[in-house]
Amino acid sequence: MTIRDVARLAEVHPGTVSRALNEETRGLVNEETAARVQRAADALGYRPNPLARGLKTNRSYAIAVLIPDLTNPLFPPIVRGIEDRLEQAGYTPLIVNTDNDPERERSHIATMLARQVDGFIAATARLDAEPLAEALADGMPLVLVNRSFEDGSVPVVTVDDRLGMRLAVEHIVGLGHERIAHVAGPQNVSTGRRRHEGFQQSMAAAGLAVPEGSVSVAQRFAEDEGTRACRELLDRDPRLTAIVAANDRLAIGAYDELARRGLRCPGDVSVTGFNDMPFIDRLQPPLTSVRVPQREIGIAAADLLLASLGDELAPPREILLEPMLIVRGSTAPPSAAR
Amino acid sequence: MTIRDVARLAEVHPGTVSRALNEETRGLVNEETAARVQRAADALGYRPNPLARGLKTNRSYAIAVLIPDLTNPLFPPIVRGIEDRLEQAGYTPLIVNTDNDPERERSHIATMLARQVDGFIAATARLDAEPLAEALADGMPLVLVNRSFEDGSVPVVTVDDRLGMRLAVEHIVGLGHERIAHVAGPQNVSTGRRRHEGFQQSMAAAGLAVPEGSVSVAQRFAEDEGTRACRELLDRDPRLTAIVAANDRLAIGAYDELARRGLRCPGDVSVTGFNDMPFIDRLQPPLTSVRVPQREIGIAAADLLLASLGDELAPPREILLEPMLIVRGSTAPPSAAR
Repeated sequence: MTIRDVARLAEVHPGTVSRALNEETRGLVNEETAARVQRAADALGYRPNPLARGLKTNRSYAIAVLIPDLTNPLFPPIVRGIEDRLEQAGYTPLIVNTDNDPERERSHIATMLARQVDGFIAATARLDAEPLAEALADGMPLVLVNRSFEDGSVPVVTVDDRLGMRLAVEHIVGLGHERIAHVAGPQNVSTGRRRHEGFQQSMAAAGLAVPEGSVSVAQRFAEDEGTRACRELLDRDPRLTAIVAANDRLAIGAYDELARRGLRCPGDVSVTGFNDMPFIDRLQPPLTSVRVPQREIGIAAADLLLASLGDELAPPREILLEPMLIVRGSTAPPSAAR
Repeated sequence: MTIRDVARLAEVHPGTVSRALNEETRGLVNEETAARVQRAADALGYRPNPLARGLKTNRSYAIAVLIPDLTNPLFPPIVRGIEDRLEQAGYTPLIVNTDNDPERERSHIATMLARQVDGFIAATARLDAEPLAEALADGMPLVLVNRSFEDGSVPVVTVDDRLGMRLAVEHIVGLGHERIAHVAGPQNVSTGRRRHEGFQQSMAAAGLAVPEGSVSVAQRFAEDEGTRACRELLDRDPRLTAIVAANDRLAIGAYDELARRGLRCPGDVSVTGFNDMPFIDRLQPPLTSVRVPQREIGIAAADLLLASLGDELAPPREILLEPMLIVRGSTAPPSAAR
């Protein structure tokens, strides 16, 4: 079954079939003709071969999607957003997990280049990804998710982390808290850094001081580091009434330390998280958290990449998505007793 | 940079380079020579082009992986297992989400066939997947995960659901419970059906009757259906002391109904789940659940597919993986008061 069979049935030139069945060139063909070609292709069960199509247009219609780890619940909705949008445009995502390991990252990028992908979407945490920078220098379209190169040379989709922290801090301040501490994320990761900045700015905007010692930095976004940081904060100021954590796992760790000390949440100490992970509403108490529009991040990243593929002169852009605060049972007015 | 440059540097014939750099044919080349070719390729930065390699061997070195939905936390670890194993063998997984929607499934399968994948791994819930059956008839290697065709004609990786239920029932019976009910999963899905069978068999093996009305079937694996089923069970037998649920989400739904009635878990009613989802240990009380070796499922599925690719006469096989029971705070001896 070849393109010639379809052309014969539809009574058009084979070149017309080729253009009519290719999304990018369909507009060049008369609408009625394109419909006739499509019907003929359907009737014959003809499938355009993307590899052959790729040889003609010099495209593979495949996009590499680099993420740290699919089993981190942050990423599946982002990947679904990317896939759903790419699929509509006739592209297939090739998803690879780097584990934020430079060697794995390098090897995956080489494989993807050898597979002649048309572009990369990278949500990996490392900012110094040398192999990516090399691909970019070769003119390979690239979109970054939640990360940015210092010089702003690459289109990027991020969540407004500072706004997210402002929502959390304003909520806590609005409840009447003044002795507010921050469990910060790792400062070599942009989300950790931006959320820390957001905390400082929002406290200042609320007219509250951030005394020395009211911020403790976690080495990783992990429960045990949240526990350690919370212990440090309570050792320094046993009378603090609220903890704003840089993500949900750190907040869960803080829960553990509060329980260990016999402190009630929110009765003694209010806690907020960030990311609004699945089942966080099932914790005891359900966690107040900043929700990140994960699926929308994926859609926006795919849109940016498709835009770079369509028009290589399009200027790099940043898409900044807005988070929202989900208030649950872990936050309440401060207790008079503390 | 071509294969000829590598051949010149390694002082071998270009055909030797081709065989040495291809995993499947490396064994045909003297070991020392293969190492020299690899060094030369590394030195020159030569990457074998999988598309060109595909044209020669008639392979794309891509495998379609069909799952219902990546945002269901069951699937990311399975997909990681598949990816990690395929990657070692030089294959790239193409992951697509079907949402268990026949139209999406059909369209994805067509795209994957057009991309000339070398095989399929399918973890979709539908057993009647006609397009898959067609591909199979064309000799396309296929491995099913957690599902099987009636006639056993296709290699399959499953978890021993009946054993999982036996572990849960034996634990509950061992605690001294006798009035035990089952929140069953949907019976048109094989996991729901097999777990229900496992419940019946294990109760019989323990010498306990399963009275009419002590099983309630959920229409979906969802919290609200767990709540509804639990309500039905307690309406029928207000004195039951244990609920064995067909998965964690149904168990969580049961928690809600117990709380609504002012019943304590495990004080009044013990509850078990199935799957051991992330954060289930953070529920109040932490849920006793049957853990499924998700990553191992993925690895086994990839192994089965690679075996079919290597030797088309290999007989279809079933790999049955063993679950384990994780005992937590939601199960305890029955209260004398009930």
